[in-house]
Amino acid sequence: MRVRIEGGAPAPEGLVEAVLAYEAALAADDLTALADAFERGPDAVRGDRNGLLAGHDRITGFRSRRGGAGTREVAELRVHLAGDDAAHVTTVNVPSGGGRGLVTQLWRRGDDGAWRIAAAHVTAPAPALDARVWRVAGTPLVAGASDGPLAGETVAVKDLFAIAGQRIGVGVRAFLAEAAVEEASAPAVQALLDAGADVVGLAQTDQFAYSIAGLNPDYGTPPNPAVPGAIPGGSSSGPAAAVALGQASIGLGSDTAGSIRVPASYMGLWGLRPTHGAVSLEGVWPLAPRYDTAGWLTRDGETMRRVAAVGLAGVDPVPVSGTLLAAPAVMMSCGAGVRYAFDAALGALAAAGTRVVPVEVPALDDLLAAFRVTQQAEAWRSDGAWVEAHPGVLAPDVQERFDLARDVTAEQEEHALADAGLLAARLDLELGDGVLLVPAAASAAPRLDASEAELEARRRATLSITAIAGLTGRPALSVPLLDTPDGPVGLCLVGPRGADLALVDAGLAIAAALRNPGETSLGHTV
Amino acid sequence: MRVRIEGGAPAPEGLVEAVLAYEAALAADDLTALADAFERGPDAVRGDRNGLLAGHDRITGFRSRRGGAGTREVAELRVHLAGDDAAHVTTVNVPSGGGRGLVTQLWRRGDDGAWRIAAAHVTAPAPALDARVWRVAGTPLVAGASDGPLAGETVAVKDLFAIAGQRIGVGVRAFLAEAAVEEASAPAVQALLDAGADVVGLAQTDQFAYSIAGLNPDYGTPPNPAVPGAIPGGSSSGPAAAVALGQASIGLGSDTAGSIRVPASYMGLWGLRPTHGAVSLEGVWPLAPRYDTAGWLTRDGETMRRVAAVGLAGVDPVPVSGTLLAAPAVMMSCGAGVRYAFDAALGALAAAGTRVVPVEVPALDDLLAAFRVTQQAEAWRSDGAWVEAHPGVLAPDVQERFDLARDVTAEQEEHALADAGLLAARLDLELGDGVLLVPAAASAAPRLDASEAELEARRRATLSITAIAGLTGRPALSVPLLDTPDGPVGLCLVGPRGADLALVDAGLAIAAALRNPGETSLGHTV
Repeated sequence: MRVRIEGGAPAPEGLVEAVLAYEAALAADDLTALADAFERGPDAVRGDRNGLLAGHDRITGFRSRRGGAGTREVAELRVHLAGDDAAHVTTVNVPSGGGRGLVTQLWRRGDDGAWRIAAAHVTAPAPALDARVWRVAGTPLVAGASDGPLAGETVAVKDLFAIAGQRIGVGVRAFLAEAAVEEASAPAVQALLDAGADVVGLAQTDQFAYSIAGLNPDYGTPPNPAVPGAIPGGSSSGPAAAVALGQASIGLGSDTAGSIRVPASYMGLWGLRPTHGAVSLEGVWPLAPRYDTAGWLTRDGETMRRVAAVGLAGVDPVPVSGTLLAAPAVMMSCGAGVRYAFDAALGALAAAGTRVVPVEVPALDDLLAAFRVTQQAEAWRSDGAWVEAHPGVLAPDVQERFDLARDVTAEQEEHALADAGLLAARLDLELGDGVLLVPAAASAAPRLDASEAELEARRRATLSITAIAGLTGRPALSVPLLDTPDGPVGLCLVGPRGADLALVDAGLAIAAALRNPGETSLGHTV
Repeated sequence: MRVRIEGGAPAPEGLVEAVLAYEAALAADDLTALADAFERGPDAVRGDRNGLLAGHDRITGFRSRRGGAGTREVAELRVHLAGDDAAHVTTVNVPSGGGRGLVTQLWRRGDDGAWRIAAAHVTAPAPALDARVWRVAGTPLVAGASDGPLAGETVAVKDLFAIAGQRIGVGVRAFLAEAAVEEASAPAVQALLDAGADVVGLAQTDQFAYSIAGLNPDYGTPPNPAVPGAIPGGSSSGPAAAVALGQASIGLGSDTAGSIRVPASYMGLWGLRPTHGAVSLEGVWPLAPRYDTAGWLTRDGETMRRVAAVGLAGVDPVPVSGTLLAAPAVMMSCGAGVRYAFDAALGALAAAGTRVVPVEVPALDDLLAAFRVTQQAEAWRSDGAWVEAHPGVLAPDVQERFDLARDVTAEQEEHALADAGLLAARLDLELGDGVLLVPAAASAAPRLDASEAELEARRRATLSITAIAGLTGRPALSVPLLDTPDGPVGLCLVGPRGADLALVDAGLAIAAALRNPGETSLGHTV
């Protein structure tokens, strides 16, 4: 180990020893020693490629989930002095797995004379490919046409879509191992290539797309750059994270029960679930065909407008009426932060001269029940045989979902289908050609250390809202316009079937109105 | 922008303004303002995923090469105080291309009252795949057999080797665009898969493998984690960088004139150029078949021993004699740092009881001349037609090399071949079944900002050494045992044809002797 104190000065007493003791605690994953090495309170920070964690509690929470940092040898240690009781330490380390790591820390001497870390920044060697986000990627993996409306755009394709020469992996390693190489790309992929976009690669999904959490034990949970330490949302977790991370400009995903809208909401993206049936699902692994759709995620509305125009080129456009609707009952399932942000948005719209008309929707529990049972029956028809033949390979929560799906009887499905039809008819009657505004999710992204009970409660609440578009086949657009103390939440626009492009235009107009109040006359554009 | 000073204290006067002025200078790529924002002298540091740059000169040199950092918006700024005139600043930024960036800096107030940066650590959003290192990658791209002597190992394959279902790209985008999908994997790839190793992906190469620098204008220059700011060496630059970065444990490369030995030397890796003809070149894009070989790069000798045993399974092993040889004339082409380190290594071997016998080799200029002309003629036969048909697409230095190769006449080749035969015979006579020790390269890795004249001089000097193995077809192993002030250099062992595995054993014994003097009796093991 090479040690250099700036200017050749002596090191402050005990500092180098404290740094090396910290390295030893890391190697031993000694959580107590690590916790004690950081200053207490809300100001301690630790950052890495997954984002910045602020506060002693979050830092220790991260460590407790990590399960050790691996071993590394300090090759070089440099100290910059900052007053008598503070020093900035830079270490270059050589991890046992190769590469070089870089750590910088602000150390301060406390009243007890002990050195502790106030701020740390860690760069560990990165893998070739972040398996949490991508299964396969290239530079690009598939080049698009040399020109077109999407030239220069880059696409992360959910690992449910066929790409010629690649396999479909559905987020399950055991499935991939048996998958055949696809001979042709899915039309939804090909349309983007033909329009000039490059495909970067195939990005991860919750297993069989049967979750809205974004957790995947086979490949790891994608990071949420908008809320470090929170889940990304799913099941289009990989494409959404890729877009949020700037690794692609367009995510091509699928949405059965919220799988585009929820990760868009959790990560501050635009996400469009198109009208059911508007985008071809040929070459896309099915979950519940009655509800399955293919759609897109982007970082901005302008890109969404362009990709939607390409992807929906064959669909006759339907207009939306100027009427914005809101269903007060929906808000009851949402957390306080979401309710507050949603009300603030409606208030701002009202201030901009846009009336939002209250509307009655059926009881959310009824929507959820009808949706869930019919989805279960279809999911079992799609994947039940494979799941039965491969016991013990799925994530426990996904396995549990399939276990419940297996038990749905034909009679139960028939009843649920009848209910679903009635509920859809009632919704269509109420919503007409208006645009319903709802939160895209019942909460901001839950934290990675949320309990299973909390995750399940939030899942239930969110699915009861997303079922409105699911049951009616209406398009739904999540726009990152609600800010809560726990992170972003999407403002979701649900429009008439076929009005996808008009819905994106409405989203752009609402975004402009909320961001620049007074500059836009929303009444004219929506 | 959210600003938080710890404990709610007021910010030191002028600090936040200095941080924002620095961000503005970054956005404008104002090199003067950026240089002035860092403290002068050798102690200023700046680190990112490519490593740590120490000293004001290196930091400004880096910036002058970079050509701007792109625009980003500061979302969050946190300040930790450290005495009266120092503060640690953490900023989270949102680059225009998406993702989140994290920057931490130690700022100090100078005697002139101005705040300047003493140390900076930057995490910018990473691309899905580092195109400088990889062209395509998966998790894995191709899974190996479930068991075998290389189970758990991961391979970076140079983009000259066929992998079933992939194209060969030879480091040239225009070549890739016309390349066909390969139906079968090259035997050298398949042997590793059959032995249980996973293939991570196809890694970059100098264009047509016709360079030992590792620069590639189509995909960018791979980083050298052993010497931040230096070239990686090539042409097996991608596999070598992947191994050095910890993104693969085995690099599968090719070596015609040093393309495994040189990047191994520059990045502190083990690199084996096997006996010419010992490893199949079926399915490998040729450069100069008379000299082409396929071999491996690893971080440690034990892995090299295992992969060489797999890759050379079909070769009858030849022993080496216990005699170590050194050619004083070779050292004349090396820089002072290399000469000093090489002499020190010989001294340590002598101290360990191992005599190194001096040996005469032909004039290096003659070796280089004969090698170069014969390589040129073969390179033109391999790639001349393609190069002629695609003017203006190659890197200027590679194009220049092909321009020279085009002009080699049949008569010149014939003379050079005769010379090469005589020189090889003389070398074989002198070297016999001994192991010749030479530096793997004439210098440590040149800096990225080295002049073209300097690069060419070092290239010439290195190629005159590597030609010894090239002309004789002997195996050559680079072992990271020489340390110079400018970075690592390989100690290269050149052995009798067929003695590849014995050569690796000799390398292991020498490494043990040099690292643990006294513990190993080298006389018995070599």
